[in-house]
Amino acid sequence: MNYLIIVYIMGWVLNFEGAFMLLPALTAFIYGEKEGYVFLACSVLSFAAGVLITLKKPSNKRFYAREGFVICSLTWIVISLVGALPFVITGVLPNYIDALFEIVSGFTTTGSSVITDLTPVPHCILLWRSFSHWIGGMGVLVFILAILPLFGGVDMYLMKAESPGPSVGKLVPNVKKTASYLYKIYLGMTLVQFVILLITGMNPFDAVCITFGTAGTGGFAIHNDSCLGYTLPQQTIIAVFMLLFGINFNVYFLILRKKVKEIFKIEEVKWFLIIVFTAVAAIVINSGSINDLYLSIHHAFFSVASVITTTGYGTVDFNLWPMFSKNVLLIIMFIGACAGSTGGGMKVSRILIYAKTVKKEIVGMIHQKSIKIIKMDGKTVEHSVIRNVNVYLVSYIMIMAISFLIVSLDNIDFESTFTAVVATFNNIGPGLGKVGPTGNFSEFSNLSKLVFIFDMLAGRLEIFPILLLFSRATWSKK
Amino acid sequence: MNYLIIVYIMGWVLNFEGAFMLLPALTAFIYGEKEGYVFLACSVLSFAAGVLITLKKPSNKRFYAREGFVICSLTWIVISLVGALPFVITGVLPNYIDALFEIVSGFTTTGSSVITDLTPVPHCILLWRSFSHWIGGMGVLVFILAILPLFGGVDMYLMKAESPGPSVGKLVPNVKKTASYLYKIYLGMTLVQFVILLITGMNPFDAVCITFGTAGTGGFAIHNDSCLGYTLPQQTIIAVFMLLFGINFNVYFLILRKKVKEIFKIEEVKWFLIIVFTAVAAIVINSGSINDLYLSIHHAFFSVASVITTTGYGTVDFNLWPMFSKNVLLIIMFIGACAGSTGGGMKVSRILIYAKTVKKEIVGMIHQKSIKIIKMDGKTVEHSVIRNVNVYLVSYIMIMAISFLIVSLDNIDFESTFTAVVATFNNIGPGLGKVGPTGNFSEFSNLSKLVFIFDMLAGRLEIFPILLLFSRATWSKK
Repeated sequence: MNYLIIVYIMGWVLNFEGAFMLLPALTAFIYGEKEGYVFLACSVLSFAAGVLITLKKPSNKRFYAREGFVICSLTWIVISLVGALPFVITGVLPNYIDALFEIVSGFTTTGSSVITDLTPVPHCILLWRSFSHWIGGMGVLVFILAILPLFGGVDMYLMKAESPGPSVGKLVPNVKKTASYLYKIYLGMTLVQFVILLITGMNPFDAVCITFGTAGTGGFAIHNDSCLGYTLPQQTIIAVFMLLFGINFNVYFLILRKKVKEIFKIEEVKWFLIIVFTAVAAIVINSGSINDLYLSIHHAFFSVASVITTTGYGTVDFNLWPMFSKNVLLIIMFIGACAGSTGGGMKVSRILIYAKTVKKEIVGMIHQKSIKIIKMDGKTVEHSVIRNVNVYLVSYIMIMAISFLIVSLDNIDFESTFTAVVATFNNIGPGLGKVGPTGNFSEFSNLSKLVFIFDMLAGRLEIFPILLLFSRATWSKK
Repeated sequence: MNYLIIVYIMGWVLNFEGAFMLLPALTAFIYGEKEGYVFLACSVLSFAAGVLITLKKPSNKRFYAREGFVICSLTWIVISLVGALPFVITGVLPNYIDALFEIVSGFTTTGSSVITDLTPVPHCILLWRSFSHWIGGMGVLVFILAILPLFGGVDMYLMKAESPGPSVGKLVPNVKKTASYLYKIYLGMTLVQFVILLITGMNPFDAVCITFGTAGTGGFAIHNDSCLGYTLPQQTIIAVFMLLFGINFNVYFLILRKKVKEIFKIEEVKWFLIIVFTAVAAIVINSGSINDLYLSIHHAFFSVASVITTTGYGTVDFNLWPMFSKNVLLIIMFIGACAGSTGGGMKVSRILIYAKTVKKEIVGMIHQKSIKIIKMDGKTVEHSVIRNVNVYLVSYIMIMAISFLIVSLDNIDFESTFTAVVATFNNIGPGLGKVGPTGNFSEFSNLSKLVFIFDMLAGRLEIFPILLLFSRATWSKK
C-alpha cells in the first residue's frame, strides 16, 4: 500500500474543504451571523493542515486499484469528519455523532436529518448542509480530478471507485476531461434551475439552497415543512429538475455533442421514465381524489420524482397515504435513479441487467443451446459487469439485513426501523412511519446513527470501496 | 411440447391423490365422522379420472427439461385443486379460494392458515391438512418416482425440477433408487418421532398430526394454541425433530452407509447449526429473563428451530417479543433450512455460495490475478450453479416485491403485509403482526390469497418451474 500518496491526496481533500467552507462563512457575514467565524476558523484549520501535508509531492508513484478504493473511502470519511465540526462548535448539534450523521447525510446526498426544528438554525449552517449536497452529488473526487493535475493512472482508479452505476461512465477517453465536462454540465444545469426559481419569485437564499439540494439529489430542506410552502409552479419546477438530475448525464453530453439520435438508444433512460409515470399513475389511482385530480397528480408526481431520484423533498406527507401508495414509493426507493446521475439507489441500469439475466436464464433452461449474452443499448454486457452487479446485490442485502438487525435494538416499530435503513442506505432521506416526511432520525440511539452513517457512505460509494476498507486483502503486504 | 406425456403423468398424480385421501377417510370412520364420506367420494372421483387417463401409455416418449418443469408445476397445482375439495364440501371452508389457500399451504409445507378456530374442525380434515405436509415435504413427484416405473430420462428431469437447493441431491447414480432411499429415511425418522411422542404420553391422534407437520416442516397445528398445550419435554422433542428434518438428508444417507467422517465435511450443516445457536443466544440475551432462564432458552430454541426450518409451530407468541428478537426470526425466515431437507427458505447452502462470491469478488478487486473459483465441501462450485443462484436471488426479490405491492392493496399494516409475504414465500407459516403465531390469514382479500397461493408454490418449487409455466419459451413450437 502506498501510504504516502494516500496521505498526500487527503491533504488536497482538506485544502478543498477549506475552500468549500468559505461559502457558508460568506453567507454568515451577509446575514450578520456570528457563526461565520466558526466556519472561517474551520476553513483556516483545514487549509493549514492541507497545505502542510501537500508541501512535498510523494516520490513513489505506485498506484493500483486498492489505493484507489482506499482513497475514495477515506476522502468521504475525512471530508465528513471535518465538515461536522461547525455543527458542534456552533451548538446546533452539540453531540458529535449527530453532527457527523447530518453532514454525512449531506455529502452522500441522503437528506435524512436529526435536527428537529429548522427555524432557529442560522443561514450559514443551512447553506453548509445544502452545499454539501451539491459537492457530494457529482462526487468529491471527481471535483478534485477536474481541477487538480494528478499523474497518470491515479485518476482512472479514483474515477472508477467513486462513479455510480455498474460500469464507469467515461464520456471521453481522458478522465480529467470527462470530470471537467461532467462538472460543467452540472454547474450549467444548477445555474438554470437557480435562475428559473428566482424568476418565479423565490427569495435568493431559498433558491440557492433548494437548487443545491435538487442538483445533488440530496433533499435537505430549509423549512420544517420541506417544499410545502412554495407555490405549485415552483414545486413543479423542482420536481422536473429532480428528474433531470436523476437522468444519466451521458444524455446531456450527447445533446451538447449534437448526437440527439443516440439518446433514444439509452435503455436506462427510457425505463427510468416508464417507471416514473407508472408509479405516478398507480398512486393517483390508489389514493387520488377525483375532485382534486390536478392536485393528486401534482403531489404524486412530486413525491415519485423526489423518491426515485433519492432526493427526498416533500410537498405532502405521503406517510398518510394508503399502504399501496406508500409501498409503491418504497419499491422505487430501492430502484433509484440512473447510473451516471447524481441520484442514489440500486440504479435503473442494474435493475435492467437483473431482469435480462432472469430472462436469459429462463430461456436457457428450456433451450440448452440458446445464446448466452446480455445486451444493453445494443452492446454486449461483459461477464465481469454481470458478476459485479450480482455480487453487489448480495452485499447490498447482507448490509441491509445486518443494519436492520442492529437498528432494531432500539425497539422502534417495524415500519420505521425498516424504512430508516432503506432510506439511508439508498441515500433518499425520508422513509415511512417515524422517519416519514414530517419526522426525523433524532429518536434513534447513537449506535443506530453510526449504522446509518455507515449505510449512507456505503450506499453513496456503492458498497465496494467501503467494504474493501475492512478487507484483509486490501491491507496485506503482497 | 409432449402434451400426451404431461396428461399421462397427471393421471398418475390423480391416482396417488385418490390413495392419499383414503387415510383421512379411514380417520373419519374411526372417529365416527360423517365427513368421511366426502373424502371417500373425492378419492373415488380422483381414482376414476386417474385410471381413465392412465389407461393408455403415450407412445411418444420425447421428454426434455421443459416437460419436466411443466409436469412439476402442474403436479402441485392439480394435487392442490383436487385436495381443496373436501374443505369446501364439508363446509369447513366454504369459499374455494380459502380451501385452495389451506391445502396449498399444506402441500407446500407452509402452514399458514385461514381457519380462525380449529376447535369445531373434524379429525379427518385436521389429519388431511397434516398429511398434506408429509406428502409435500419430501416431494410429490419424488414419491411417485420412488414407486412408479417411469421410462429413462423422465425421472431425472422431474427430480431436478422438484428438488430443493442449488444443485440436485442425487445420493446414488440411479434416480429411482435415490428417491426410494430418501423416502425410506423419511419414513423411518417419521416413525421414530411418532413412537417417542407416544412414549411421552401424547395421544395418538396428536402424535400423528404433529409428527406429519414436523417431518414435512409444515406447521399446521391441531389446537388453536399450536404446541403451547404440550409438556416441555414433548415440545423439546418436537424442536429437535424439526431441526433433524431441516438438515440435508445426505447426512442420514452417509450415516446409513457408515461414512460418518464425511458428514463433518458438509459445510452447510455446520453453518446451519451455527446460525441456529447464534440466533437462540441473541434472542435469549435480548428478551430472556434471568429468573426464568431455562424457559427463556426453551422457547427461544423452539421458536428458532420452528422458524429456520420453516415449520412454524409455536410455544409462545413471539410477536410480543422486542423488535430485535422478532427481527432475528425474520432474518432466519429468509435463510431457511438446508438444501436436500424438507425445509424451505433460500437454503443455507445458497447463502454460503453468496457469501463466498462476495469474498472472492472483493479479493479479486485488489489482486487482479487471484484465483476465481469457489469451493464448497472441498469441491469446485460450477459456474452454472453460481449463475443459477444469482438469477434465483433476482427472481426471488422481484416476486417478493410484486407480491408485496399487490397485497398492500388490502391496506393492512406494514409489518403484517410484509411478513405475510415473507412467511408464505419462504413456506414458514406464521409471520409477525396480524399473521403472528396467534393470528391467521383470514383477514386478507381473495386477491391477496391468490398471491399467497402463487408465492407458496413458487417458494416450494424454488421459483423456476412456476416462472417457466408463464414463459413464452416453454410453450413455443421450436
